[in-house]
Amino acid sequence: MTRVGIAAYGITPFSTDDNKIETELFKSVKNLFEKNPQINRDVIDTVLVSTNNNSKYLGPILAEMADIQPKTAHSIESLCNSGTNSIVSAYSYIASGLAEMVLVSGAERYDSPGQILEWDNSRGEFKHPIFWASIFSKSYKREFSISEEQLALVSVKNHRHAKENPNAISKKTYTIEDVINSKKLTEDLRLLDCSRPCTGSASILLASEKITKEFSEKPVWISGIGQKTTSAGFTKNISFNSMESSKIAGQTALNMANCGIDQIDVAEIHDAFSVCEPMALEALGFSKPGEGMKTIEELENTNEFKINPRGGLIGSGHPLGATGIAQTIEITQQLQSDANKRQVDNAKRGLVHNMSAAATSSTVLVLER
Amino acid sequence: MTRVGIAAYGITPFSTDDNKIETELFKSVKNLFEKNPQINRDVIDTVLVSTNNNSKYLGPILAEMADIQPKTAHSIESLCNSGTNSIVSAYSYIASGLAEMVLVSGAERYDSPGQILEWDNSRGEFKHPIFWASIFSKSYKREFSISEEQLALVSVKNHRHAKENPNAISKKTYTIEDVINSKKLTEDLRLLDCSRPCTGSASILLASEKITKEFSEKPVWISGIGQKTTSAGFTKNISFNSMESSKIAGQTALNMANCGIDQIDVAEIHDAFSVCEPMALEALGFSKPGEGMKTIEELENTNEFKINPRGGLIGSGHPLGATGIAQTIEITQQLQSDANKRQVDNAKRGLVHNMSAAATSSTVLVLER
Repeated sequence: MTRVGIAAYGITPFSTDDNKIETELFKSVKNLFEKNPQINRDVIDTVLVSTNNNSKYLGPILAEMADIQPKTAHSIESLCNSGTNSIVSAYSYIASGLAEMVLVSGAERYDSPGQILEWDNSRGEFKHPIFWASIFSKSYKREFSISEEQLALVSVKNHRHAKENPNAISKKTYTIEDVINSKKLTEDLRLLDCSRPCTGSASILLASEKITKEFSEKPVWISGIGQKTTSAGFTKNISFNSMESSKIAGQTALNMANCGIDQIDVAEIHDAFSVCEPMALEALGFSKPGEGMKTIEELENTNEFKINPRGGLIGSGHPLGATGIAQTIEITQQLQSDANKRQVDNAKRGLVHNMSAAATSSTVLVLER
Repeated sequence: MTRVGIAAYGITPFSTDDNKIETELFKSVKNLFEKNPQINRDVIDTVLVSTNNNSKYLGPILAEMADIQPKTAHSIESLCNSGTNSIVSAYSYIASGLAEMVLVSGAERYDSPGQILEWDNSRGEFKHPIFWASIFSKSYKREFSISEEQLALVSVKNHRHAKENPNAISKKTYTIEDVINSKKLTEDLRLLDCSRPCTGSASILLASEKITKEFSEKPVWISGIGQKTTSAGFTKNISFNSMESSKIAGQTALNMANCGIDQIDVAEIHDAFSVCEPMALEALGFSKPGEGMKTIEELENTNEFKINPRGGLIGSGHPLGATGIAQTIEITQQLQSDANKRQVDNAKRGLVHNMSAAATSSTVLVLER
C-alpha cells in the first residue's frame, strides 16, 4: 500500500470576521497555492470540505473557485472532529488507489450551528458544550483532587503559546489569577477556561508517496490513524473524568504507527476547555490517570516536548471544521522545522488528538518526517 | 486489493411523513438488521450518513441508535449525489484497509434544504432546480428536434415501473396526455416531468471480500467507480443538452470494471426531470447524441434491459440523501434476482448513475454479481 503524505498546506489568521463560508474556505486554499506554486491543480482529484456550516454543495463550489475539476467533491461533518475525519477520509481515497491527491479544506464562521448540541436530549436544557465541560471539570477535580488554580495553567500556557502563532485569535497572555477571576460561566468554568468560537480556515493537501515526494521538499507522512465513536449523547460516557474514545483511538494510531507514546515529540491536543487537556493526556498515555496536570507542569521549562505549541483551541480559537486541519498543519510545521519560535527541538514524530462532543468520538493521527 | 461487496441493505417506503431526520434514518437501518439477523454489529467499523439535513453529528447519533460503536462516523453532503458519494467513500475505507464493514445510511425529509440552490448566484432569482431543468429541456428539444410528447414518455414509463416498487411514493400510472396536461411549472416543464421531494431512507452495508462472503449468500460486487465534478454553477456547463460530468464518470467506471456499456443489463439513471434520462443515456454511451428517447422507446417492449426499473426518481420520489443508496439497492436486488415483478431477465451487471445540480457533478457505479 502506498504511503500517504502531506504535500502542502495553507492557513490564514483566525478571526471574528463576518465572511461568507465560501470566502473563508477559499482563503486558506489561496494561501496554499500561493506558497506552493509548483502544485499542479490537474493532479488534485478529490476535494473534501470540512465544516458544520449549513450551506450545501461546498465541495464543488470550492473546486470551482480554486479552478479544480476533481473526481470527488463533498462536505464532511462530525462537529469538532470534522477536520480530522476529513483527513482520514482523504487518506483512504489515496491508500485505496481511488485518488492521487486530495485537497482537504476546513472552514467555519463564528456563529457555527455546530456549537449548539440541539440533538442531545440527555442534556436537557443544557445544549451548549459548556455544560458537559462543567460536569467534566467538577468530576475530574473531585476524583483527582485537582484545584481550579491547577487547571487554570492550561489556559495560561496555551494563551502564552498562541502569542507565537501568527494565525491565533488570542494575542494576550494571562496569569492564573486572570483565569480564576475571568467571568464565571458555571460553577466550575471560567470564560478563560473555554476555547473561543471564531471564523477560520485551514487547508491541507494529501498525496500518494510518489506525488508527495514530487511536490514537497520536506515530506511528512501519516503513519498512524485511530478513530473511535462510543456514543453521541454524553451521558452514555462510562466516566466523566476520562476519555474512553480518545484512549481507544490513541492506542489504534500508535499500533498502526508501530511506536510508543514516549516516541512522540510534539502533540496537538483538543483543549476545547481547560480540563480536556489533562484528560486527553491521560487517555493517550502521556500521563497516568490523574497526573495530566503534573505532566503539563513538568513540561513548563523544557523545549524537548510540547503540548499545543500553536496555543491549542483555547489560544488559537476554535473554528470547528478548520480545527483538526489546523492541528495537523502545526504538527507538519514542527516536523519540517518551520515552526519558528514555537519549534520543538528535533521533532521527528508528532501526534494530533481531536474529538467531538464530550469525547463521544475521537480521532488520533501520528505524523512522521 | 480486496474486492468490496454489498453484504446487506435496508429500505423503507418513501413518503411525505413529517419524521425527525434521526427517526427516518433509523427506519432503513432497522429494516436492514431485521432482514439480516446474521450481521454482527461489532464488525461494523464505519458509519456514514448521507443527507442534506442541517442536523449535526448524525453519524454518531445513528451509531448510538443502532447499537454500533464504530471507529469512524460522520455525515457526507453533495446535494442529490450524496448517497453515491458516500458509497464511494465507504469503498475507499474498505479498499484502503482502514475498515472491514461500512454502514452507509441516507435519509432526507420532504422539506430538505438541499432543494434550493441558494449558493449559485449565476441562477439569479431562479434558485429552484426546475429552472436549470427548463433550460435543459428547451435546449435538448431544440437541438435534437424532440417534442414535449416524446419526453413525456420518461414520466409515463417511470410511473408505470414505480407501481411494481413497494417503496415508491407514486402508486398511479399516467398517459402521455396526463403528463402534457399536468400543471405547467415553466414554459418547458410540467409537474409530472419532475421528481417529487419526499421523506425517505435507504441503507447499505459494504464490506471487504472476506466479510461479504461470510454474511451474504448472493454477494454483489462494486467493480467500477467513476466520479467527476466539472463546476458548481450550472452556467459553467459547456452545453445545456449534454452531461459532461456523467460522460467522464461513466467512462471511468466502465474502464475500472473492464467492460463495455453493451455489457450492462440494467441501469438506474438520475431522472430528476424527464429530460435528464435521455441526456444521461447519451452521456453514458447507451445512446448516440440525440437518440436517448429512441432508446427508451425501443426498450418499451423488452425485458432484457431496463432503465429505472424501480421507477426512477420521478416514480419513486427523490429524498436527496437516500436516492443514490436506493438506486444501488435496486441494482443489487436485480443482480440477486430479488426484484420480483421489476426483474430484468438474467441480470449479471448493472449501472448506477447519480448526479447533482444540473450534472455539475456525477457518480457512476458498476455492480456485478
